[in-house]
Amino acid sequence: MNPLEQYEAVRLDRKTGELLLLDQTLLPNEVRVIRLRDQPAIWEAINMLRVRGAPAIGIAAGYGAYLAVCHSGASDYAGLSKDFLSATRYLATSRPTAVNLFWALERMEKRFASLSGSDVESVKAALLAEADAIKAEDTAMCRAIGENGLTLLKPGMGLLTHCNAGQLAASRYGTALAPMYVGHERGYGFRVFADETRPLLQGARLTAFELMAAGVDVTVICDNMVSMVMKKGWVQAVLVGCDRVAANGDAANKIGTSGVAIVAKHYGVPLYVLGPTSTIDMSCPNGDAIEIEERNPGEITELWYSKPMAPEGVKAFNPAFDVTDHGLIAGIVTEHGVARPPYREAFEKIFAEKTAR
Amino acid sequence: MNPLEQYEAVRLDRKTGELLLLDQTLLPNEVRVIRLRDQPAIWEAINMLRVRGAPAIGIAAGYGAYLAVCHSGASDYAGLSKDFLSATRYLATSRPTAVNLFWALERMEKRFASLSGSDVESVKAALLAEADAIKAEDTAMCRAIGENGLTLLKPGMGLLTHCNAGQLAASRYGTALAPMYVGHERGYGFRVFADETRPLLQGARLTAFELMAAGVDVTVICDNMVSMVMKKGWVQAVLVGCDRVAANGDAANKIGTSGVAIVAKHYGVPLYVLGPTSTIDMSCPNGDAIEIEERNPGEITELWYSKPMAPEGVKAFNPAFDVTDHGLIAGIVTEHGVARPPYREAFEKIFAEKTAR
Repeated sequence: MNPLEQYEAVRLDRKTGELLLLDQTLLPNEVRVIRLRDQPAIWEAINMLRVRGAPAIGIAAGYGAYLAVCHSGASDYAGLSKDFLSATRYLATSRPTAVNLFWALERMEKRFASLSGSDVESVKAALLAEADAIKAEDTAMCRAIGENGLTLLKPGMGLLTHCNAGQLAASRYGTALAPMYVGHERGYGFRVFADETRPLLQGARLTAFELMAAGVDVTVICDNMVSMVMKKGWVQAVLVGCDRVAANGDAANKIGTSGVAIVAKHYGVPLYVLGPTSTIDMSCPNGDAIEIEERNPGEITELWYSKPMAPEGVKAFNPAFDVTDHGLIAGIVTEHGVARPPYREAFEKIFAEKTAR
Repeated sequence: MNPLEQYEAVRLDRKTGELLLLDQTLLPNEVRVIRLRDQPAIWEAINMLRVRGAPAIGIAAGYGAYLAVCHSGASDYAGLSKDFLSATRYLATSRPTAVNLFWALERMEKRFASLSGSDVESVKAALLAEADAIKAEDTAMCRAIGENGLTLLKPGMGLLTHCNAGQLAASRYGTALAPMYVGHERGYGFRVFADETRPLLQGARLTAFELMAAGVDVTVICDNMVSMVMKKGWVQAVLVGCDRVAANGDAANKIGTSGVAIVAKHYGVPLYVLGPTSTIDMSCPNGDAIEIEERNPGEITELWYSKPMAPEGVKAFNPAFDVTDHGLIAGIVTEHGVARPPYREAFEKIFAEKTAR
């Protein structure tokens, strides 16, 4: 088995009608694939972050919705409808702010509605196809991002990434890690530095895990070592994901990305932001309009540790994301190509071409 | 008791002849002062980093050497000499690369040699005075660094620091934290951000602890949040310590300092390096000549955690220090004043004036 397949975040066992998730709460210490059949188990897995990353959550929700009809005992569309809609409404409550979750469930509901009057087997087959399509489209999109990103890279390069925008957060390849995987398939021999990404350690726990599993040369560093490795000349490009990109190219991503971008600029290392065009929000004029989630300070002072690692009661500031100014970004890589500054014009061109297709 | 006195790293109990150390391996979870009388206990405390920071180690070694004669049963100088020299040679093996340890022990040995032929009580009194002098000189030096540093600051400023260059690493005040303490005494109302400083967490564990204990407003952030707090306009100056400063002003300090400096420059926030003139090495032309210690990768992937936080066997790069380019440093604050660029000329002036005194 291809290592990338082995470590897929979300799969369906078509024989048993079970959702297979690589339980990400156990990584990197344990590789355990959990098998989920019932809606409460799927709900719990999304809620507890056993599956994480917007695309992966969407895919899990798609299959979850399918499984509601797959295992339904109903003998007609009306009966299926009851089971299906109670499942989609229920799954929608598993992560209250996950846009991709709602998007995938709505897409499944729309498909279901279009099947009104069909027989049970046809509905099941059509919903399976729809869920498969969500996953396949994500894989194709990530693959395209990987191909487009690879045009910016050369064999033997040292690459640096922050957080985890990889296969574990998507179907295959991921976004920021996609060019690394595509390049790896072609023997590019990249040397990757993975920022550990405090406080949640997605870089050390997840990025290092999946790159290592795929056979990519990866070295974990603390977030504060980026300057050191760049000064040594070990990094020729930075690849990061994005949670939301404003119309002017300002990009929100995991906390620390803007610091990496400033340091990269200082050393003359290009930083590329990689993500699907769906993360580009043309209604958002610039980064100032992006609201940043603040999380529990205990994630900094206590989480993961065997004992608290800061004085009891000390204040801690824990923003989950920061905004990287468009002036620090050398290019924004989407499934439709690489956008270069000025970004507003580049994005408008991408969206116009997309619409024209 | 003044909070700063309460949390002194190294003290002597003159009545019992015991060295009192605030055990820094237990901070911030437990404030325990350990009482040491015998040489093996003092050796262990230095070796196990119960006392840390170059000045604090030097002070502990000074008192440790004194205690060898204090508790000696010898009745003449020759007898004392045997006990004293076996102690100093033994203590010198507790941290093989700690320059201040050797410096303090040699100073005590020199003083001891100068007392040849004196009676036992005179030798004891003179060595106590010498050990007290090491501590008093360090306190005076730190206080002077604090006063000089404070001239660069204004009441109400937001300050950021990295690692721990505070009282816990010295006698009183520390170096980078000295202006914060002196300003605090004068009601400056600083708001301090302490980088947690991965992987050893000196910022979260030690800097936050001592500033909080002294009543200074302190907030812990992850190292990757520096850009975020600066972008918000919360930081008006960065104060950091130094392990070695080259003749051109390049400064080696805890890993991550150079990244903070680059980000500070980007946002127009001045970064000041604070340390005694003894850390300025005029024989070292620039930062390239400073060798950087690489430490155990397990400090990144496993230390402190209840479980490993990176895949088993993954590579990790763990440099202990980095070099901040002199062009990123707005001023270097010593006990003899603030050096401004060009640093070589400024240092030469400081050393000439020092010699002339």
